[in-house]
Amino acid sequence: MKVPARPFAHEGIAFGCDYNPEQWTPEVWDEDITLMREAGVDLVAINIFGWSHVEPREGEFDFARLDDIISRLHAAGIRVNLGTGTASPPAWLARSHPEILPMAEDGTRRYPGGRQAWCPSSPVFRAAALRLVDAVAGRYGSHPAVELWHVSNELGCHNALCYCDDSAAAFRGWLRRKYTTLDALNDAWGTAFWSQTYGDWDEILPPRATISTRNPGQLLDFHRFSSDELLSYYRAEADAIRAVSDVPITTNFMVTAHIENLDYWSWAADMDVIANDHYLDHRLATPTVELAFAADLSRGLGRGAPWILMEHSTGAVNWQPLNKPKAHGEILRNSLTHVARGADGVCFFQWRASVQGSEKFHSAMLPHAGTDSAVWREVVELGGIVDRIGEVAGSRVEADVALVFSWESWWATQTESRPSQALGYLDQVHAAYGALHALGLTVDVVPPGADLSAYGLVVVPGLHLVRAGEAAVITDWIAAGGTALVTFYSGTVDEKDRVWTGGYTGPFRDALGIRIEEFAPVAPDASLALSDGATARLWSERSRTTTAEIEASFVDGPAAGHPAVTRNTWGGGEAWYLATLPDPADYRSLLARIAERAGVRPAAEVRGPEGAVEIVRRRGADASYLFIVNHSESDAELTATGFELVTGMPAAGCVSVPGGAVRIIREEAAA
Amino acid sequence: MKVPARPFAHEGIAFGCDYNPEQWTPEVWDEDITLMREAGVDLVAINIFGWSHVEPREGEFDFARLDDIISRLHAAGIRVNLGTGTASPPAWLARSHPEILPMAEDGTRRYPGGRQAWCPSSPVFRAAALRLVDAVAGRYGSHPAVELWHVSNELGCHNALCYCDDSAAAFRGWLRRKYTTLDALNDAWGTAFWSQTYGDWDEILPPRATISTRNPGQLLDFHRFSSDELLSYYRAEADAIRAVSDVPITTNFMVTAHIENLDYWSWAADMDVIANDHYLDHRLATPTVELAFAADLSRGLGRGAPWILMEHSTGAVNWQPLNKPKAHGEILRNSLTHVARGADGVCFFQWRASVQGSEKFHSAMLPHAGTDSAVWREVVELGGIVDRIGEVAGSRVEADVALVFSWESWWATQTESRPSQALGYLDQVHAAYGALHALGLTVDVVPPGADLSAYGLVVVPGLHLVRAGEAAVITDWIAAGGTALVTFYSGTVDEKDRVWTGGYTGPFRDALGIRIEEFAPVAPDASLALSDGATARLWSERSRTTTAEIEASFVDGPAAGHPAVTRNTWGGGEAWYLATLPDPADYRSLLARIAERAGVRPAAEVRGPEGAVEIVRRRGADASYLFIVNHSESDAELTATGFELVTGMPAAGCVSVPGGAVRIIREEAAA
Amino acid sequence: MKVPARPFAHEGIAFGCDYNPEQWTPEVWDEDITLMREAGVDLVAINIFGWSHVEPREGEFDFARLDDIISRLHAAGIRVNLGTGTASPPAWLARSHPEILPMAEDGTRRYPGGRQAWCPSSPVFRAAALRLVDAVAGRYGSHPAVELWHVSNELGCHNALCYCDDSAAAFRGWLRRKYTTLDALNDAWGTAFWSQTYGDWDEILPPRATISTRNPGQLLDFHRFSSDELLSYYRAEADAIRAVSDVPITTNFMVTAHIENLDYWSWAADMDVIANDHYLDHRLATPTVELAFAADLSRGLGRGAPWILMEHSTGAVNWQPLNKPKAHGEILRNSLTHVARGADGVCFFQWRASVQGSEKFHSAMLPHAGTDSAVWREVVELGGIVDRIGEVAGSRVEADVALVFSWESWWATQTESRPSQALGYLDQVHAAYGALHALGLTVDVVPPGADLSAYGLVVVPGLHLVRAGEAAVITDWIAAGGTALVTFYSGTVDEKDRVWTGGYTGPFRDALGIRIEEFAPVAPDASLALSDGATARLWSERSRTTTAEIEASFVDGPAAGHPAVTRNTWGGGEAWYLATLPDPADYRSLLARIAERAGVRPAAEVRGPEGAVEIVRRRGADASYLFIVNHSESDAELTATGFELVTGMPAAGCVSVPGGAVRIIREEAAA
Repeated sequence: MKVPARPFAHEGIAFGCDYNPEQWTPEVWDEDITLMREAGVDLVAINIFGWSHVEPREGEFDFARLDDIISRLHAAGIRVNLGTGTASPPAWLARSHPEILPMAEDGTRRYPGGRQAWCPSSPVFRAAALRLVDAVAGRYGSHPAVELWHVSNELGCHNALCYCDDSAAAFRGWLRRKYTTLDALNDAWGTAFWSQTYGDWDEILPPRATISTRNPGQLLDFHRFSSDELLSYYRAEADAIRAVSDVPITTNFMVTAHIENLDYWSWAADMDVIANDHYLDHRLATPTVELAFAADLSRGLGRGAPWILMEHSTGAVNWQPLNKPKAHGEILRNSLTHVARGADGVCFFQWRASVQGSEKFHSAMLPHAGTDSAVWREVVELGGIVDRIGEVAGSRVEADVALVFSWESWWATQTESRPSQALGYLDQVHAAYGALHALGLTVDVVPPGADLSAYGLVVVPGLHLVRAGEAAVITDWIAAGGTALVTFYSGTVDEKDRVWTGGYTGPFRDALGIRIEEFAPVAPDASLALSDGATARLWSERSRTTTAEIEASFVDGPAAGHPAVTRNTWGGGEAWYLATLPDPADYRSLLARIAERAGVRPAAEVRGPEGAVEIVRRRGADASYLFIVNHSESDAELTATGFELVTGMPAAGCVSVPGGAVRIIREEAAA
Repeated sequence: MKVPARPFAHEGIAFGCDYNPEQWTPEVWDEDITLMREAGVDLVAINIFGWSHVEPREGEFDFARLDDIISRLHAAGIRVNLGTGTASPPAWLARSHPEILPMAEDGTRRYPGGRQAWCPSSPVFRAAALRLVDAVAGRYGSHPAVELWHVSNELGCHNALCYCDDSAAAFRGWLRRKYTTLDALNDAWGTAFWSQTYGDWDEILPPRATISTRNPGQLLDFHRFSSDELLSYYRAEADAIRAVSDVPITTNFMVTAHIENLDYWSWAADMDVIANDHYLDHRLATPTVELAFAADLSRGLGRGAPWILMEHSTGAVNWQPLNKPKAHGEILRNSLTHVARGADGVCFFQWRASVQGSEKFHSAMLPHAGTDSAVWREVVELGGIVDRIGEVAGSRVEADVALVFSWESWWATQTESRPSQALGYLDQVHAAYGALHALGLTVDVVPPGADLSAYGLVVVPGLHLVRAGEAAVITDWIAAGGTALVTFYSGTVDEKDRVWTGGYTGPFRDALGIRIEEFAPVAPDASLALSDGATARLWSERSRTTTAEIEASFVDGPAAGHPAVTRNTWGGGEAWYLATLPDPADYRSLLARIAERAGVRPAAEVRGPEGAVEIVRRRGADASYLFIVNHSESDAELTATGFELVTGMPAAGCVSVPGGAVRIIREEAAA
Repeated sequence: MKVPARPFAHEGIAFGCDYNPEQWTPEVWDEDITLMREAGVDLVAINIFGWSHVEPREGEFDFARLDDIISRLHAAGIRVNLGTGTASPPAWLARSHPEILPMAEDGTRRYPGGRQAWCPSSPVFRAAALRLVDAVAGRYGSHPAVELWHVSNELGCHNALCYCDDSAAAFRGWLRRKYTTLDALNDAWGTAFWSQTYGDWDEILPPRATISTRNPGQLLDFHRFSSDELLSYYRAEADAIRAVSDVPITTNFMVTAHIENLDYWSWAADMDVIANDHYLDHRLATPTVELAFAADLSRGLGRGAPWILMEHSTGAVNWQPLNKPKAHGEILRNSLTHVARGADGVCFFQWRASVQGSEKFHSAMLPHAGTDSAVWREVVELGGIVDRIGEVAGSRVEADVALVFSWESWWATQTESRPSQALGYLDQVHAAYGALHALGLTVDVVPPGADLSAYGLVVVPGLHLVRAGEAAVITDWIAAGGTALVTFYSGTVDEKDRVWTGGYTGPFRDALGIRIEEFAPVAPDASLALSDGATARLWSERSRTTTAEIEASFVDGPAAGHPAVTRNTWGGGEAWYLATLPDPADYRSLLARIAERAGVRPAAEVRGPEGAVEIVRRRGADASYLFIVNHSESDAELTATGFELVTGMPAAGCVSVPGGAVRIIREEAAA
């Protein structure tokens, strides 16, 4: 990311929340502001869902309440993260223009009554939204309270894929710009098969429901189009703001386990600061590892620059099948893990728990139970700590390991017809990341094609779709002395979703020194034995090595006797290949071996419960900061010298981190 | 329920069935009537699905066949329960008026070809149906054979929730009547959140499918509206009948485990007699306990008055995944359990098993196998017993325990975004009822706000939605000396689905002496240990007592150390709170303890297999009747003096009830 | 099947594939043809999805490429199986005529973008398709390369059931032709129930989605109509071809486990040769047993005549949840099992693996890995064997056992409301067939009503729907000395889906000597003990014998004490009845007992792993051929004299068949 023209410049680490004062009376607002100050809140996002309040009838704007709120916050010294208010259109717009409503794959509409009920390609919606942005930005663009612009909200959370006629028209336009000729499009999508050749642009539709399976090239381009379409929408809002305001602009990403529709690599450069919403997903086996991954990816989107955690929760959410409260201390650990991994802001959804509406069972800083509650006390405690560690702001995380991540591979992997429906892209990324995380290694998440020269180890999990040039960056880096691990299903297709023939892993094949003939996925509940004693699942392959050494083979299953783990010397470096999904302990052992050969190691050595302590170093202009997050119930120890910011105590030699605690050490003698 | 103006006055206990003679020839009718007399059938529901027969073309009525059937039944001394025939519109109506067809949430229609394919709000449908009712009621309103009017059939079984434009218009009308102003509606639904504020009544739609979650206030009111809309439809039919007939009127409710859309508390006063359809649901762990609950609730709807079991089955139904036949003797046990719990009529669907159509694999009194069959022999046996126990008719069930039940809580609990999708309202009611049932306690099911002065123990399971006044009835009753058990998730929201803040259980909080800060649901397959040795599931909470005693705490899980069972002295009474779902044996133990303190006990002491014998007392003007239903295979014994009606033997002292048998003792010396 | 007017006359066993050259350049075509010759390919299906290539714009035909391909194949001596090219309409047709698109049950359309997106009843589609057929058949009808016409492709695979208005009109026409009067239709469907009587033909719709359950008679007739409608479409294409070509005509059936919509019994007579597509279904417990069944049924459709395996795979498919590659040798075993069971052609989908499109992960003869691969080497090996066994062509399989199979029973069994949703028709057929297969018995699959005089044993699994005359053929054959096993749910309904009353099994009842009163299905995971020590599942019944002997009774479950297996002497024969689903080993034991009494035995005795060796005899004019397929890893042995075609070695006495191998012995002294 280029240095933004309008950097976000908050003093210290921001501490804040979404605030939806429309739900409350002015008396409550005053209580809220008093309590915000008690908790140390200094950045508040407002007007997120303000449209129907600010423009109660088409063209009639009423800013009285918003003026009042902003002025009260400003008076209290609280900075404003100002929403453009366009996230959910008001009822009057859907009534007068039902064509803005999203259309599902089967041609049925989705109706108002929730939120985000608009087609990303609707010109009518866009025009109405931009009128609102003009009005809001015009009014508050120079307001001294406003520190950041918050465009819309969680763009694409629900409405990323729309199949209506407006979307069809926009999709055609996008395709014409991309391919210029129908011949090029037909070639890219492989329409020669199944008699799908297009003879006229107007024959092309979004990939609506078919009675059979859909064209995967069309599906892939529709994903790209849909991401671009919302980015184009974001740019339109941002342009409108920039015309009248110098305040930095962003929107809240959703780098999380269950949202996949936006390719944030292509979005990031448009943000003045990266912001992310993150909620623990208790459907996963290790939610806090996913948190760390999401934080590292958020940082990666900004190419290492500090970012803002725009939303997370003090406790349960309301949209998972089972919504768990946080354990004692978990608010603190979650928050400071984000900071450890580069966040310069810690915000929550939302300030005061709703008592009505869809999110009334979503936790908040001020819970239904009020201030006489454990949650409130932990919030206040956290606010104090955030305040004390302000000096960390602006420092950057150090990492020796890179993990290559790609939304395009996500989309291409999880298409309709494929070797195994049990194979998920993010699952494979999480498995590889989880092994690195368990080893205490700090990881930068980078896009395909990124410069890798800063790293000692590169991990490429399931990079199904890869361009020749992107693969070459990796193999050239290996040849230049790097150590990489590539895992199965990588290098299967190119950017047109076209199989690289001649043996799978295509453009990685020579560097890996292996030739894969057939995929042999196994049932999700089956296990595979490897010759090195490891246990694996999900996948195997029939292959033979050309130049690689076999580190382990399949002992059983449909690829018995074939290589499972190989290592190939490639130029001055080493290319490892993993043809299956090892169980977590075995995956960690494998990566420990590779990491040792690559000479990468954790930010510091911790003595204590294995795999349960996170350790990350942020380095600033003047000092470095070692973050230690102890997720276990046991104490951990490390050797450090400096000053511990959470407890406000000197660190001299052996530092103990009690079970459940977080420590942040300003290190002396940092390089 | 006020005393009905037109009471149902059958001699003895009615024994009957649905009869669909349209399926058969007149020769079969004669055989049917002969066999009905053999079985003791004396009440037959006809014309349930008669519309296409009685009005084969729009406006052309043909009563020849119906005249004939009624006359044959009348000649045989069989009373008629006459359907208005409107349950399923004929094909000609849907063809000329497709706008009567129901619309699903996603805007797609549901087509003719099944039954009940009509929108409850369709003015076209209603006009056509009332023309039919006028014709039928006009013709038979004074016919001496007609003992009861049967309006439509299982109203709302399939079509309760319709999302079409007619429904939208009716919903708006209902809302205008309820709220008068849009401000009031916006306040009630919390539309200030997510930019949902309505500025015009015409912007409001039914809660059609959205791409996100829907407004819970809107969902709740749509449930209320949908129930009211069908009630309004019922009233329209009943009004048409009353204009020309003095015969009592009812419709068959579906108080059962899988139908939730009608709030029968609001319907009951309109019925001249409560009638219910009940089928064992083998998807439940204990189908016969649910039967007992449904029977008690049916009685509760009539405020204790006798009611009619309008449909049940002699064996398998056809609509569950697995349709089980009944065990030997089960027809008798099921039927007499309903009578024990207040039914003055026992009817079956249907007389003769269909050989075609959707219900051809639904059991009947006369099965496909014919009269040389176990089912037929048990039907005839039952008919004889029903005949012998006629003196029971009119007596009323005695109960010391009340259970508070609420359809509104059902709807509000099972909304879209909530702490745990695994939490079902009826499940919690069943769990509490099951514990009482296992203790042999007779339970009256009452609505929130009901007078509780007659009871010694009140159980309030998961009463999620409660009005302040409804809660006050309960807490005042406790203060006046009562003993109550309130279970988790009770008192969470008010009638607007708005959270009661300050600690959950809201209006029960002070009486319970406990303050709940956070819900901590657990996965459905996890178990929780309590400090008293009990095991529990599904739910826990983080709370602290204010004035209550802790009876048991959570030993593990996300609320370890927090109270699980508490007891609070409140005025002259005792308020217990249960923060989790104990396993059945532990739930029973807990309620045994509470019941003992409350001084409530079974109708009689039975010696025999624990928890497998039901015992209920009905008390009439001249005698009391003790029903004993032995569900086990072992004999049970009790001490009683009087006359046993099933066997026709005196009961003097020790009465034995063989395994699988039912005994009904007219008690001497009854108070 | 009558002897076809235009028999398929390939020299030896055809070896071939689908070839979709539109995906490749002419340079690749030349490489392909060279490799086809290397593999021994001599029959290639082309133009399957050719429409958009041959008619790129409406009415503009361009045959240049197809001319070129045919001419190159012809020059190489490869015969052409020429597709009419109508399987998937081009994009221009759906754009100008969206009314051709299929409609789902709920009234939503299914869109272009996959394949087969056309309504079988669309007159617009049919006219356009026939214009194409006229053009293709006119151009190539006399081309010397063309050996077979391939009409469309897998007709009905996706689009068999369409609910649009065109389908509604066609359904009405079909019904008028079938029933003549509405009275007859109303009677057949039992519309007297639920007020469904039709007063006008135009009131009738396809069985679109209802809010309740649909009329089962309507569903059954809609299945029949839908099968007939596609057959009518097939005939229209075939008629157009016959007008200008003498080459035989067929289409590729899908006799397989997951396709049920076409009643191929009614289609078979229209085929000049039966052709089938078959893929192993790894969702089944025993995919290769299903393969054998499908092959036997394919042969049965041609009444024993040789048929063509038109598609199968060299490895994984792409449409199952988990797509498994084949084990070493499995391509050979699968292929030769089809030949053993009557195939005179072995073809694959497809020649060269796609690199784009929906089927790019479907295996092919020439895999992505190229010719340096195990798959390619096995393909070449198979081609050599197929070439060597050419003399087998034209011979016919010998079988002593008949199994009665019915698509109508499939449809009627798996309707909406029924005793158990866990009961599948094909499952029961597979279970019975699997027991026979494990015993090594060769089975002819025959339609209800077929002449049984050639057989020693007849098995009638779950023949739910049976006409009186069809049942009489079976019971008369038993009376004449035959031995039959009838299994539960047989004889339940007649051709109108009307229950045969008086005790289930209706028209089989007297011959079976048993009277069934009630079905008693059990949960899929429950097991039942039988009195003979067997274990069973899924089903039991309450019945009593009239004249039958009880061979085993239910020990537990809902029919404890009732008969489970009975045997009745009926005339000169024996009628067995099975009221449950025994576990495989017990099913095999039961059928072994019955087979022994019936005097039927395998084609030869094999010594080796029990149940893992298939043995089938084909008898030609001049010799007989014994096929032995060893699915186990152990060797098997048998005694035979003659010449073994696979190894090219004499067989004299003891012949060993190594684990995984196939042997084909030309027998000397064959009877």
